Amino acid sequence: MARLLSLVESGGPAAAEALALVFPYTGRAYTIGITGPPGSGKSTLTDRLVGRIRRAGDEVGVLAVDPTSPFTGGAILGDRIRMQDHSTDTGVFIRSMATRGHLGGLALATPHAVRVLDAAGKPWVIIETVGVGQVEVEVAAAADTTIVVVNPGWGDAVQANKAGLLEIADVFVVNKADRPGGDETVRDLRQMIEWSGERDWNPPIVETVATNGQGIDEVWDTIAAHRSHLETDGRLAARRAARLRDEIRSLVVERLGERAAALCAGPGFDELLGRVESRDVDPHAAAATLLNQ
Amino acid sequence: MARLLSLVESGGPAAAEALALVFPYTGRAYTIGITGPPGSGKSTLTDRLVGRIRRAGDEVGVLAVDPTSPFTGGAILGDRIRMQDHSTDTGVFIRSMATRGHLGGLALATPHAVRVLDAAGKPWVIIETVGVGQVEVEVAAAADTTIVVVNPGWGDAVQANKAGLLEIADVFVVNKADRPGGDETVRDLRQMIEWSGERDWNPPIVETVATNGQGIDEVWDTIAAHRSHLETDGRLAARRAARLRDEIRSLVVERLGERAAALCAGPGFDELLGRVESRDVDPHAAAATLLNQ
Repeated sequence: MARLLSLVESGGPAAAEALALVFPYTGRAYTIGITGPPGSGKSTLTDRLVGRIRRAGDEVGVLAVDPTSPFTGGAILGDRIRMQDHSTDTGVFIRSMATRGHLGGLALATPHAVRVLDAAGKPWVIIETVGVGQVEVEVAAAADTTIVVVNPGWGDAVQANKAGLLEIADVFVVNKADRPGGDETVRDLRQMIEWSGERDWNPPIVETVATNGQGIDEVWDTIAAHRSHLETDGRLAARRAARLRDEIRSLVVERLGERAAALCAGPGFDELLGRVESRDVDPHAAAATLLNQ
Repeated sequence: MARLLSLVESGGPAAAEALALVFPYTGRAYTIGITGPPGSGKSTLTDRLVGRIRRAGDEVGVLAVDPTSPFTGGAILGDRIRMQDHSTDTGVFIRSMATRGHLGGLALATPHAVRVLDAAGKPWVIIETVGVGQVEVEVAAAADTTIVVVNPGWGDAVQANKAGLLEIADVFVVNKADRPGGDETVRDLRQMIEWSGERDWNPPIVETVATNGQGIDEVWDTIAAHRSHLETDGRLAARRAARLRDEIRSLVVERLGERAAALCAGPGFDELLGRVESRDVDPHAAAATLLNQ
């Protein structure tokens, strides 16, 4: 499975071929996305959920997704050592994924990796991201149930993205709820949810202390409740169809992007750039010239 | 100028036409990008730099760039009221820009807006972004001199992106340097810079207290030093040519993306999606089918 994941992550024609072979066996795994600011305890929560799933007798795959900074290749993935409880358990498969190359890389690679775990028969796949950046939120939101983990006094940590997190959360977990400010955080969240208007599912708020396991059963029950909500009236199928639509679109954009890169590396490009530098041609006209070639 | 900026931001054929008319008059303004975590004092620093530039007798344009959250249209631009000192000064033009539509929107729209200010004869354009997200960093980095503003104890605020900020910084400003931990922050930055290896320009670190003007002259002198470094050996021209190349590429990608969206809205798409849902066709094959149409 590890080798197949590496192949799939590497992209290119061999990856596409492998995915085509895997695809008919997919569509059965239920995916759980976990996102939240760095330090909020996502890894510990994931660890506890893995334990809960194993006690229920099911196997589980975990994808720990870590977009690197936009300008360097350095990964900052947190300490995976907490997962060592499960390292000898063959019913648990854990994989770290870091972005390579372009911005959309992880957003495209994650569903592929999910499919490998799905085809291998894991009934549950947890996708944990390292923070609340745009790509991370997008990746975590592309799950059947998306959990947003915050802490008491979370406001500062996600100042730029409260509305975005509210939009994607199926479940809010207030982790480290034994710290001061836990109740205010729950009230704050409840108010945000009320203000955001009526929906067919209002995200429940669960308080946890993941380090000692407090609240984990309630998180698990809440995931089950959301799952049965989705399985009513074809909502889950509709959500998955919408994700497939987006994925096909992204693949088309990616292929066209490769064509764009090829256009901008062709023999005429440097000469064209020189004419833009000298202000004889403007950038839009240069782009149009390339597209007409 | 405000109407021209609105036209340019709105995109579409009229914007492209306006930009083509403006473009021959551009290339003279020197741009300063300012980025840093929310609350680090970027607006106050910008305000002080505007004052410094005006005392030098020059006009200045300011673009306050605010990417919204990925999932909602809500803007979170900070308090612009501090800029009111300059509101009656016709030598200062201030414009807030918020993203509309797709991810790359601001990254493409900002250089366009810079060109309008440039063509109007502003010798200085300051681009201030609201935080350290991927798009914001990208926007601020697309300047001649990029200033990264941090505060004492900044580590937590930018945990996910230290390396990215180091990569783009031409100048570090430690603002609110009178607070506890200022010296450690300077040491921390100096060490990060040393560890990052030899380069032709090592970003200076300037301590400021923007609220009372302390250190602003030094920031200004440091910008001037960086400018003359760039103007030696054709570095500024090379940097600007690289930006133009990236911009043309992005425009080509954008146009191709529009074609992709059209492909995925065509009459055959829903039928194709149905075949992907039933696992008869995999997503890559579906994308290839669309591209061949």
